[in-house]
Amino acid sequence: MTKASTASAPRAAASTELVAQWRELLDKHATVSCALEKELQHRHRIGLSEFETLDRLVDAACETYRMSDLAADIYLSQSALSRAVARLERDGLVSRSMCSDDRRAIFVCLTDKGRAVHADSARTHREILGQTL
Amino acid sequence: MTKASTASAPRAAASTELVAQWRELLDKHATVSCALEKELQHRHRIGLSEFETLDRLVDAACETYRMSDLAADIYLSQSALSRAVARLERDGLVSRSMCSDDRRAIFVCLTDKGRAVHADSARTHREILGQTL
Repeated sequence: MTKASTASAPRAAASTELVAQWRELLDKHATVSCALEKELQHRHRIGLSEFETLDRLVDAACETYRMSDLAADIYLSQSALSRAVARLERDGLVSRSMCSDDRRAIFVCLTDKGRAVHADSARTHREILGQTL
Repeated sequence: MTKASTASAPRAAASTELVAQWRELLDKHATVSCALEKELQHRHRIGLSEFETLDRLVDAACETYRMSDLAADIYLSQSALSRAVARLERDGLVSRSMCSDDRRAIFVCLTDKGRAVHADSARTHREILGQTL
């Protein structure tokens, strides 16, 4: 036991360092996400998932950006993304359309109102990133 | 419009840089979390939230670590943490006890089985951190 412990000491130190790095990443992710969620909700009544969705759509061409691309880009589960997009659609910020060639593919597109809300809330998003990153 | 755009060009560049940093953080967080979740499930039939809970409890003294401390340490919502702890308790990996002085405070403690499962799955956790961080 003692021998093994001595032999594996450098490995244990490396492992401690990895865990510290991982916890720092978790910490930063949580700090930035919480601050963004709070201020976006407070100032613009929009959630972080909804904002991140708009933030991807604003650079995307309509009729080329599928729900499945969006899910991969913003690291939401399909069900969490569906809920976010449903809320955005209900508020008139995005529209969804079915692809005529492939009815399983659903495209998402910003509306004019969505573009205006994004422009406004992006200022808050960038401001909070500047404070927390 | 042109004047304003020219004047705000450095600010726009700083903002682009912040967004790139934020997306990199999201990317890394998602990559590491997904890899951990997959391998912990595959090799040990334990989820990442459950593992992270054990990983905090293993260093904590019993009867001093409250559910509320745990929630703050692992960045889970109270409800997500309750679900994780309920699964761990069902599998006999942790036990919960009420504080005799303050019945609102609930303490969580590793069982011997929990300590063994943690020792085993921590090797996988550290290995995947080494590959992905």
